Amino acid sequence: MMGKWLVNGRESQSIGVDDRGLAYGDGLFETIAVRGGHCRFFPEHLQRLLDGCERLRIPPPDQAVLQSEAAGLAKDCDHGALKIIVTRGAGPRAYAAPSKPRPLRVLGLEHTEPASAEDVQLGVRVRYCEMPISRNPALAGLKTLNRLEQVLARSEWANPDIREGLMLDDRHSVTCGTMTNLFMVSDNVLKTPLLTEAGVTGIMRNKIIQQALSSGIETRELIISTDDVANASEVFLSNALIGIWPIREIDGTDYARGPVTLKIMQALRAIGVQECKV
Amino acid sequence: MMGKWLVNGRESQSIGVDDRGLAYGDGLFETIAVRGGHCRFFPEHLQRLLDGCERLRIPPPDQAVLQSEAAGLAKDCDHGALKIIVTRGAGPRAYAAPSKPRPLRVLGLEHTEPASAEDVQLGVRVRYCEMPISRNPALAGLKTLNRLEQVLARSEWANPDIREGLMLDDRHSVTCGTMTNLFMVSDNVLKTPLLTEAGVTGIMRNKIIQQALSSGIETRELIISTDDVANASEVFLSNALIGIWPIREIDGTDYARGPVTLKIMQALRAIGVQECKV
Repeated sequence: MMGKWLVNGRESQSIGVDDRGLAYGDGLFETIAVRGGHCRFFPEHLQRLLDGCERLRIPPPDQAVLQSEAAGLAKDCDHGALKIIVTRGAGPRAYAAPSKPRPLRVLGLEHTEPASAEDVQLGVRVRYCEMPISRNPALAGLKTLNRLEQVLARSEWANPDIREGLMLDDRHSVTCGTMTNLFMVSDNVLKTPLLTEAGVTGIMRNKIIQQALSSGIETRELIISTDDVANASEVFLSNALIGIWPIREIDGTDYARGPVTLKIMQALRAIGVQECKV
Repeated sequence: MMGKWLVNGRESQSIGVDDRGLAYGDGLFETIAVRGGHCRFFPEHLQRLLDGCERLRIPPPDQAVLQSEAAGLAKDCDHGALKIIVTRGAGPRAYAAPSKPRPLRVLGLEHTEPASAEDVQLGVRVRYCEMPISRNPALAGLKTLNRLEQVLARSEWANPDIREGLMLDDRHSVTCGTMTNLFMVSDNVLKTPLLTEAGVTGIMRNKIIQQALSSGIETRELIISTDDVANASEVFLSNALIGIWPIREIDGTDYARGPVTLKIMQALRAIGVQECKV
């Protein structure tokens, strides 16, 4: 069952079969929290999308049009997720991009249930995935439509009590969750994986780094091993929809929700991330 | 401008906007040469597609249905390319696959021009791409819908005299062309990149290896460096549509079309690859 979709500004449930988004994953997407009729952190999502278009050399969507379409979809929705997809558009069978691409712009709104208070307050159970995440500096950080690794990583478990799987690259660096960014605390320093080789630079991740810095919490982006995670005093996940999920267990290793996590959750709540009820 | 498409057996130009092929590149494709109304090497393409579905745990399409649809599209086409796409189908916004996926099956036929005799007889000019190809043994060999690296590699040059770009992985191993497999000859041994970390195991590649073996040409799959390529006596490219393109130049290094290449082209021609006119 589908919610409401706008395809290049028109209400529609379909796209052209020759779209390069389908053929090659030649595009980008954003997933935006809709709360009380508004798109949370819309300017930040828009900026990431435009930056991604520039890196992939896809002509960017008109900002005013995108904003207006997003606002129109969100306005009657109290709690939802707005997805924006931008592809390089239709093209003949060939990797070479059309000389004058006509990008496809898709927006879809889905109503969602508020997060479980238990996940936020007690924390979530997490596992390591066997599926590696591949490294490519040219694509690192981008939220592209090439997400098969995440799909296969997510298929490794069915237990609904396991909320997320962590992905390692081929050097055994912990990079991210399938749909989240990872943070850990050790020696009172907040640490998160450096995403110069793989992973998505999440909007909530950026907010967390900003809030940590302005709260005087020392913060570092660096390479993180499974040993580092095992020895951390606090570990948590983030994304645009969930805000923060403290982690209470990774494959049998237990963690408590600690003071740095709480401080950051409070800071996020103060800037409108209502999920972060501590 | 689109050719004729069948979407789940019905003539159509569109797919659902919530298809996981668009959202995540969660699927596979095949590109098959249509010659004289028939799909060349159809059983081999079908087998690779089914193997890919098994590796991605996508319920495979019905073989008889696929064969019948492909034959129906091909029968009036003297020279063309048949594209088959299989995705995991529609799904809600989540990497987790639906418990009962209903795969999408898309077939599209495009009429094409016969290859240029010059490319086949004099060989083609090729370059190295800067865009790396990422390594992931779990996806290596598969022709998935995640092809953004190939798209970006192909965007590095516009000169139509350059026919293909070669892609290296992060260890500087030469893996493949953007749309072709690579072969080289040195010490009278035919060598092609080992595709256990990246790349697509091409149908024409497999045919070449088979023909080389049955012609008594020693053949090895191994890691190949740019130095190995520079020192090769013969270098050529292959894919299902072109058959073989001898390489006459890579970034200023010249090659002649040599005896091993000719022998393999003759062997391919004998099994129906009409492009291999020597």
